[in-house]
Amino acid sequence: MDGFTPHAKLWVERDGQIVMSDYRVRLLQLIHETRSLAAAANTMELSYRRAWGKVKELEENLGQPLVESEVGGAGGGSTTLTPKGREIVEAYEAFQQRLRTAVDEAYAAELGPALQALEGA
Amino acid sequence: MDGFTPHAKLWVERDGQIVMSDYRVRLLQLIHETRSLAAAANTMELSYRRAWGKVKELEENLGQPLVESEVGGAGGGSTTLTPKGREIVEAYEAFQQRLRTAVDEAYAAELGPALQALEGA
Repeated sequence: MDGFTPHAKLWVERDGQIVMSDYRVRLLQLIHETRSLAAAANTMELSYRRAWGKVKELEENLGQPLVESEVGGAGGGSTTLTPKGREIVEAYEAFQQRLRTAVDEAYAAELGPALQALEGA
Repeated sequence: MDGFTPHAKLWVERDGQIVMSDYRVRLLQLIHETRSLAAAANTMELSYRRAWGKVKELEENLGQPLVESEVGGAGGGSTTLTPKGREIVEAYEAFQQRLRTAVDEAYAAELGPALQALEGA
């Protein structure tokens, strides 16, 4: 039994600035799931104001509106992703998914055996 | 022109605790390069005490001595990696190297095209 597990955190930079990251994309995923910026912010333990700031920052970094808000109605309004926002989130998820597989493979090929050898020592 | 670059940070956990990480392995690499814990700590802007604590923590996590110190002599003593320490650092470097390639490939396959499409939009 080994018990060691490899992990990776991903992000995308441009000119040395973080433009997308697991954390930022998580916020968009939660908006998509809950249709509510307040609920998404709450889940991530961010203030509404700070969550909104993160979304605006992402939109500025990518030069595209990623969320759209509907005011009022029976449910009291909602925030959802734009089609571009969904596309970007899906592309990022595919990137994450592929990397998860790669991390496991690279670990099994390179580091796992060395750590297991220690265990046996 | 795109300008987006993907990045990843790696670490290994056991029972929810970080046992190895890019940061911790960097400290071992610097010890190997400089043969000095003080120099390695300085480069990483850590106190000597804190750097020593990190090394001891790593040794405890892996159940192996990773560094050895020689006291005195013309150079005033030195700290180097044990053979096991070198082996682990090399295995971790191979893990990192393989992942670096995988990150670039996954980005080019999954996320890069979506971000480039935004640019063109």
